[in-house]
Order: sequence, then structure tokens, then C-alpha cells
Amino acid sequence: MPAKNAFYAQSGGVSAVINASACGLIETARNNRGKIGKVYAGRNGIIGALREDLIDTSKESKAAIHGLLTTPAGAFGSCRHKLKSLEENRAEYERLIEVFQAHNIGYFFYNGGGDSADTCLKVSQLSESMGYPLQAIHIPKTIDNDLPLTDTCPGFGSVAKYVAISTREAAMDVASMCETSTKVFILEVMGRHAGWIAAASGLAAEHDGDAPHIILFPEVAFNRTRFLARVKRTVKRHGYCVIVASEGAQHADGTFLADSGVTDAFGHHQLGGLAPSLADMVKSELGYKYHWAVADYLQRSARHIASKTDVEQAYAVGKAAVEFALEGKNGVMPCIMRGKSKRYSWHIGEASLKDVANREKKMPRNFISRDGFGITEAAREYLAPLINGEAYPEYRNGLPLYTRLKLEPVPRKLKTAFKV
Amino acid sequence: MPAKNAFYAQSGGVSAVINASACGLIETARNNRGKIGKVYAGRNGIIGALREDLIDTSKESKAAIHGLLTTPAGAFGSCRHKLKSLEENRAEYERLIEVFQAHNIGYFFYNGGGDSADTCLKVSQLSESMGYPLQAIHIPKTIDNDLPLTDTCPGFGSVAKYVAISTREAAMDVASMCETSTKVFILEVMGRHAGWIAAASGLAAEHDGDAPHIILFPEVAFNRTRFLARVKRTVKRHGYCVIVASEGAQHADGTFLADSGVTDAFGHHQLGGLAPSLADMVKSELGYKYHWAVADYLQRSARHIASKTDVEQAYAVGKAAVEFALEGKNGVMPCIMRGKSKRYSWHIGEASLKDVANREKKMPRNFISRDGFGITEAAREYLAPLINGEAYPEYRNGLPLYTRLKLEPVPRKLKTAFKV
Repeated sequence: MPAKNAFYAQSGGVSAVINASACGLIETARNNRGKIGKVYAGRNGIIGALREDLIDTSKESKAAIHGLLTTPAGAFGSCRHKLKSLEENRAEYERLIEVFQAHNIGYFFYNGGGDSADTCLKVSQLSESMGYPLQAIHIPKTIDNDLPLTDTCPGFGSVAKYVAISTREAAMDVASMCETSTKVFILEVMGRHAGWIAAASGLAAEHDGDAPHIILFPEVAFNRTRFLARVKRTVKRHGYCVIVASEGAQHADGTFLADSGVTDAFGHHQLGGLAPSLADMVKSELGYKYHWAVADYLQRSARHIASKTDVEQAYAVGKAAVEFALEGKNGVMPCIMRGKSKRYSWHIGEASLKDVANREKKMPRNFISRDGFGITEAAREYLAPLINGEAYPEYRNGLPLYTRLKLEPVPRKLKTAFKV
Repeated sequence: MPAKNAFYAQSGGVSAVINASACGLIETARNNRGKIGKVYAGRNGIIGALREDLIDTSKESKAAIHGLLTTPAGAFGSCRHKLKSLEENRAEYERLIEVFQAHNIGYFFYNGGGDSADTCLKVSQLSESMGYPLQAIHIPKTIDNDLPLTDTCPGFGSVAKYVAISTREAAMDVASMCETSTKVFILEVMGRHAGWIAAASGLAAEHDGDAPHIILFPEVAFNRTRFLARVKRTVKRHGYCVIVASEGAQHADGTFLADSGVTDAFGHHQLGGLAPSLADMVKSELGYKYHWAVADYLQRSARHIASKTDVEQAYAVGKAAVEFALEGKNGVMPCIMRGKSKRYSWHIGEASLKDVANREKKMPRNFISRDGFGITEAAREYLAPLINGEAYPEYRNGLPLYTRLKLEPVPRKLKTAFKV
């Protein structure tokens, strides 16, 4: 009987290094031919499985697969689609089994965040609940850094590095202009529920007075008076003020600052964005000239300045997923475990998906300084190693040479279509 | 008699490579001790001269000065301060001469854009108009790429590279998510009067269908109907649409799109930003899920991914400025001249400031595609060499190691203060 094939899918928001996990997984599977068959990737994530729209990764050259190590975003396509519980949507699970059976799939690798871990857990239970033998392994990925048990989530370190570098660079720009021009600069970064990414900007500061001068976390209720007083004091003291604001910054009542209450000419509610709202507040209350930036997707796709540590960890969890599968494991997730000594080290550990699914890791309160506007030494110690090292892609004509896969479809075997 | 000292100042908006010009200038001056004395930098540009607030660059170590080659923003501080004409503000010119005389300054190096070239021209005429012997040399710098006679302006190539890379990376993110999530992504870039920077994003596209799918130039009057039709067609055809918009994009009547007409809860006029305005238009008319980013200062300070060509040219114009001065020249600017052969080459040329001041170089109309939404082959040929090569800074602890100068003041010699 031929070795069982594997299904691999990317899920949720992509990152600069999710393809590095794909690279680790596919290369390791290829090194274990005989024990594991082909790796079929879902086109656009789990939707690809439901639609029987599979990509045959065995058709890709060795160089193309290796190129995934330095290629951002989701090479096979990702999706935001959460499987409901077996009771709520049995049809989807039956369809998955039908597709897996048709393609002799015995391994299910799911590369995503918290929601995906939940899906992966449900799939890992199909052997028991529906009698289809399948091993499901979850591969951690999220720039939000909110998965429990793993020390960090692949994807986060690279965003952290991008945000720290961008903060340092933009702050130098403002510092050199502030005598006659811009005095306040606001950078809006991702993080709707937790301030991990905003916290990383704090690494840009090495000396007293360095930017960022104010970080706004979702964890700390925004206080307009205190905020404006701090901006004013910082400008008086240093000549300028750099603010890094998490998109999830919120008022004491839990409403987002980004929700500015502004309506446009048509009476539509305007999302507006946090950065321009804060800028407007600074301008109207303090009169300072401002500039603002919103990094948005630029921050999570910035493979050109990815963290080497992050890339290596992303590759390692992809590799470990295959190794776990070959050891007969099911319903688990490889984790990044931090060594206990002062000098940073890490190794791969293992977590049960039951302990991962639907649990969110919050930023420890002792990572935020007492005044609520900065990070502590504890935060710096945790964050600093995660952005360490550069892992530059190759360039051609001044631009990064990112892999383009052929993405050849696996011939369909089922007659029925499935509407997702 | 001791060799005359030099005054150097950075002017206007800073860039990722203006310090590379400072590096070229100071290193070349140091190599010509005996012929040229000390280099005194104006703290915060020309204001430093008016206030007699000079920085003694001879106090900086060789390593610190060389570090300027890889350090963004203005190490000595810049300013937005345009000298009026001699007739309008004779006091400022008299003050300059007073300061220069007190510090034995015989060379005036001014590193800036169009307005600065005008100031430098006026200063170059002081020998004649006010009998003070001075040689004034302008060093080109502007991310806007709008100085005449020079093939390109140091600073532009690095912004161009940043924007092209960011467009490519963010587009890959959108492409992998578009099946179930974001379909339209808008990146707002700098360029209030000309679309040079927006045009550079076009380099991200190598194959048919590649992003950016739509570029909005200030040179092309915005047409809402045509724009929305193109967005819709692109989403239908490719599944997603990436738009790069110049902040200067405008309606046929010359009003900026960014000027959205939105007012906030207090009735204040909201600047709003172009990207969110376009996003709102796409959402309300076409219903697509969108994301937007505003790169702002991030683009012009991104030394971490500067163009090697740009860095080399920035250094070369700083070096050439000193050489011109030592050849006895006055009222000139070193230029980048492009070689005539197909393979890109460049060398330093010379322009008279009379031909540079108050003239703006527009983007040639044949650089914009007939439909107004993209760039032509002529534009690609012009732009591509400017982003070529990487010139990475050193890193420590995962962050670029940027030079911090001591910035020691030159002891004041004048009793009078001067209010700027």
C-alpha cells in the first residue's frame, strides 16, 4: 500500500514567514519519501480541501520549494474560514473525509493561529468521531503572538523587527526636522486585541529620551488628558514626540479609538483610522504640526527585513510537524520553547491542541511600564531575541526575488462539487 | 593665513541618504587638509548659521563620519527656512556674513532641493553683492526627484526602492487572502506635485496581471467613474486590486483628493488622508473589503533598504562639491549624468545654479501609460537602474546600528544674538 499523502493548508492572516513553515514541511516530507507520500496543499486554505481544489507540491522544483524560505505571504493562498462544530456542520466534515479518502490523505497539517488550532483539533478527532484514520498536526503562525504554550508565534518576530526598525528610522527623520517642522509623529501598527506588536516598537529606544516616547496599548485604557499632557511634556523636553499606537487602542468603556464617530459627506460612518484621529487630537489641542503613518499589510509582509530567528523558527515548526506525524502523533502542535539560561536559546516542544484551542495569550501586565506608555525591562528581555538576525532574500534588478510556484492542480476524483 | 573653513547645512525634508552626501563631503574635506580647514555644520540647517549655532565636525571620529554613509535622516538637523531676497531681508544676509567672517568660513555647502538651490544661488552672489568672498556650492537632495539638469536626485532612488518592494510584498499578501477577505489594497505614497514616487511602484510588476494594478498620479486628473470601473474590472479578472496613490492625486479642478471635505465631531475640517478616502469610495460603491496603508516618513527614512546606486550617488555629489570648491567654482551644483549607452552608467556633471533655482522637473508625459493608470516602458528604463543594489547597514541586537554624532558646538564668537 502506498504511503499516505499529506494535506497542508495556510490559514488566516498571512505573514512574512508562513511560507518558511511550508518550506520546512515540504522539504522534510520529501526527505521521508516512502514513509510519507505527496504533499497536497489546499488552494486558499481549508476551502481548497472542501472544494477538492488541491495543489500538487511534488510538481514544484527543489529550488522553488526552497525559495519559499525567503518568500512572504501565503504561496498557496489562505482563507478566513472557521469550521463550525461537528454538530453544527457535519456536512463539512463529511466532505473533508470524502476528499481525503479520494486522495489517500492520512496527514492533515494546518498552519495558522488560534481559530485554526480549533479547526485542527476538530479534524484530529475525526478518527474517533467519524472513523476516518487521520493525524492532524497544527503549525503555529500568527503575527499577533497570542497562541498559548509556545514562547512565541512564527510571524511575530518579523513584524516586531519591522516595527522596531521603522520606528527608529522615522523617529530620526522627525528629530532632524522638528526645529521648524513636524513635532509629532504617529505610527499605527497592528494588534486589535493585544499590544505585542506595539510593544516591539519599544526596542527602538536604547538611550534615555529615544523614541518611541509614547506607546498606546489595547491593554491600557486611553486617557485623553494624560495622553495630551505626555505629548506636550515630551515635545517640550525633546523637541518632538513619536507615538506608536496599536490599532486596538481603546477607551475605558472598550470602544476603539479608531472608531472616531466621523461621518462623511454621504452620512456614512467613517472608519477613519486611529492615527489620523490621534493626529487631529494633537493638532486641535496642542497645535503641533504632525505626520502619521499606517503600516498595515506592509508590516506583516516585509520579508525583506524578516527576523532570522523568526525565519528559523518558522522553518523548524514546519519540519517538526512532519516529524511528529511520522512518530504517530495526532492533535498536537510543535512549540517554540525558550531555554532557561540568560543567553537566548530555543528548541522545539510539543503542546496538545486541547490546551491550545480557544485560549488567547495576553501580554503580561509587567511588560507595560507603570505609566502605561512604555515597555519594561522584562518586555525587552522577552522581545529582543525574537528580532535578532537578518535573513535577506536574493535580489534581482533591485527587487527581492520571491518564488512563484506553478501551483499545478491535483486532478479531481470526485464528481460532486461542494459549495463553501 | 589658515585655510578657509567650510559651512555645511542640510535643508528641507530629509532622506535615507542625505547623510551619505555629508559623509562624502566631510571625508573629502578631511583628505584635503591644508587646502580646506574645518567643516562646520549648521545645527538645523541654515538656521544654525543665522544663530551662530555651528557644529564642529572635526570633533567626530573617522568611524562616526563614515557611519553617516549608512545613517538615515539629517544628522545635523534640517529646517524649512527659505531665505528671502537680498532686498526683502538684507539683515539675514548681513548676519550670515558676520557669522562666516567670525569663523573664517569661505565655503558654503548647501544640501537640499529646489528652494535650497535658490538660497544657495543668493549666497553665491554675496561676493559681488556684499563684497564678502565666498564660494557657494549646492548639493542636490530631494526624494521628489524634481530638480532640473540632474538625471536624478539623491534620495529618490531609495524611496523608489522602498515603495516598489513594499508594493510587491503587500500585493502578495492581498493575493493570498483575496478569496475570502481583502480584495482592494491602497498604498498612499509621497509626491504632492509629481508622481515620480508613485511611478516607482510600477517596478514591482514584472508579469502581466502583477500589482500595482492602478497608479494614481498628480499629473492625471482623477475620474471617479473610470477609477471605480477599473477597480471592479481588476477584481473580476485577478481576484484583487492593488492601488498606489500619490498623495498629490487630484481632481480635474486641481483640488486634492485627500481634501475629503469631511469634518469631525467638533466641526473641524479633517485632513483625512487620501488612502482612507479612496477606500471609503471603493467600499461604498463596490462593496469590496479593503485595507490601506500610508507610508509617510517610513518611505523616506528607510535606510535599511536603501538603493546602493542612490547611496553611491549621494556620496559622490558630496565629494564633488568639495572638489568643485577647491577648483575655485561658485554658484554651481554637481549633477548625476546618465551615460548614453543602454547599460546604465553615470558620472558627475556640473550645473549652474541659475539654471537650477526655481525650476521644477516634471515627470515626462510619456512615462504614464495611455490609460493614465500605469507606467510605460520608457519610465521603467529610467527608473529601474535607480533602485539597483542593496547597501545594508550594520546591525546590533536586530536593529540597524545608526551613527550618533557628538554634535559638539563651535564656541561662539559673536556677542549679538539673531532671532530667526
